[in-house]
Amino acid sequence: MTVQRILIVSGTHGNEINPVWAVKHFNRVGKSLIHDIKYEFIIGNPAAYEKGCRYIHVDLNRSFKESENFDQHKNSFYETKRANFLVDKFGIDGSIPCQIAIDLHTTTANMGTSIVLYGRRLKDFCLAALLQNKFGLPIYLHEKDKSQTGFLVEAWPCGLVIEIGAVAQNFYDSKIIDRFSVIIRSLREEIDKLKNNLIELPKELVVHVHQRSIDYPRDEKGDIDGLIHPERINQDWKMIKKGDPLFLDSQGITHEYEGDQFVWPVFIGEVAYKEKKIAMSYTKKEVICSNNQWVYEFESL
Amino acid sequence: MTVQRILIVSGTHGNEINPVWAVKHFNRVGKSLIHDIKYEFIIGNPAAYEKGCRYIHVDLNRSFKESENFDQHKNSFYETKRANFLVDKFGIDGSIPCQIAIDLHTTTANMGTSIVLYGRRLKDFCLAALLQNKFGLPIYLHEKDKSQTGFLVEAWPCGLVIEIGAVAQNFYDSKIIDRFSVIIRSLREEIDKLKNNLIELPKELVVHVHQRSIDYPRDEKGDIDGLIHPERINQDWKMIKKGDPLFLDSQGITHEYEGDQFVWPVFIGEVAYKEKKIAMSYTKKEVICSNNQWVYEFESL
Repeated sequence: MTVQRILIVSGTHGNEINPVWAVKHFNRVGKSLIHDIKYEFIIGNPAAYEKGCRYIHVDLNRSFKESENFDQHKNSFYETKRANFLVDKFGIDGSIPCQIAIDLHTTTANMGTSIVLYGRRLKDFCLAALLQNKFGLPIYLHEKDKSQTGFLVEAWPCGLVIEIGAVAQNFYDSKIIDRFSVIIRSLREEIDKLKNNLIELPKELVVHVHQRSIDYPRDEKGDIDGLIHPERINQDWKMIKKGDPLFLDSQGITHEYEGDQFVWPVFIGEVAYKEKKIAMSYTKKEVICSNNQWVYEFESL
Repeated sequence: MTVQRILIVSGTHGNEINPVWAVKHFNRVGKSLIHDIKYEFIIGNPAAYEKGCRYIHVDLNRSFKESENFDQHKNSFYETKRANFLVDKFGIDGSIPCQIAIDLHTTTANMGTSIVLYGRRLKDFCLAALLQNKFGLPIYLHEKDKSQTGFLVEAWPCGLVIEIGAVAQNFYDSKIIDRFSVIIRSLREEIDKLKNNLIELPKELVVHVHQRSIDYPRDEKGDIDGLIHPERINQDWKMIKKGDPLFLDSQGITHEYEGDQFVWPVFIGEVAYKEKKIAMSYTKKEVICSNNQWVYEFESL
């Protein structure tokens, strides 16, 4: 087991303020705790946090691009520079190398406390399994979505997002803060238990796998012309079938789900995704059998 | 009774989107209704609404200033021009004169459905009494606050704000929309009933009168260093006394209310008021006896 440092990023989106407070709280009550694994804390986007907005130029959590595909004109963006700074400092080859990155986010959707994974890295599965085992957290596995790439945790060998909601942007909520604090506190303990063979990974990991995102109904001018239907709002993680209501438009018409397959929508009505033209994302439930290889890969970090 | 037109303004703050939708809805189901009193609908700040932010340059709902006190350099601001446009078009001497202005707002604070009055205009008391009588709405009477002036409805002979919360900025909530729709629908009906002597004003108007606003605890750098206390959040309109908790700071210390007099806090933790350094506003409860003069003044509009 060579995990020496875990990077905890809060404020990757400047208007998601509860994780920043949770870190402040942890640093007060927890920083005297001596432990083999060290936490490094950083505010992802301090300029946006200062202003209370999601980002300055572009979404920081879409700015950790592979260099070969990278659009050169974005080099002048604040978030591009900030992404480079974070990797140069805390990346696996950085000046303070961290093996794991945990990125703390909030959502206006009613996601509860949940985990977001990007792709199927076995190390991430191991870490997610530890947390799902401990807290029963649902997992959104984001993959095969070419329109959304460059996520922060992908720039580290292992990492995941903790996503908690519903909470409004820029609104402090002590219950949400408590939930982040519990996760931060437990992370090292769970890794320790695994290392000392005090726990086994659960046999199965239940994940909700991204299928596609859908936009709101729009009028002829392209403006949003539909609310999330009253029967759909706040119903994240719950299965829908053909004929179930999705939107209610300004004519009073209900727009229904027309697919033949069952899907589980997540990020329903997330305010920040309007600009991305996402009203919700459809997922499918998948059960992945756990595997000793997950632990080997994780322990070789 | 000479009320001919009522101006209904939604989107005065561009990130308060539910009233805009309520108006859209009313125009669909209610525009065919013939009535002596005509509604004029307008989006207060269309540029900010487009962008999903509160304002472009300055708060539109603080931009309706008396001309003699007016800071000339603000003439270039989008909101200053917009305020002038609204008064020139819908003001009492405008091209489409409206006698009453109703400004629809949402708040992230748990205010429920409430009325905000600015000062003690008898016509406003009459209108507020009609609504309090019908719906039992609490009233926040904002007065004697030199740091906050230039509210939209003050530029009309009669007017008030309908303020509904808690709801997040930019988040559609069909329950909140329904509440605005009910008020819009009922307004003319209640005025009709008064005109036709079908109702009397209630004997008393209960108001919560603004006393002062308080800021969050701040650290030596001037940054906010305190949450609204878990026992205080969402407790708008509820009385507090000396020793009751207000904030919880990052050291885990509870900051208490230290005044000797009972107060009733409102707009607790309103996200948009952070930039105004307002964590909550204290009010005192006052009962005002209603008066025939209110109706005379209202009917002479």
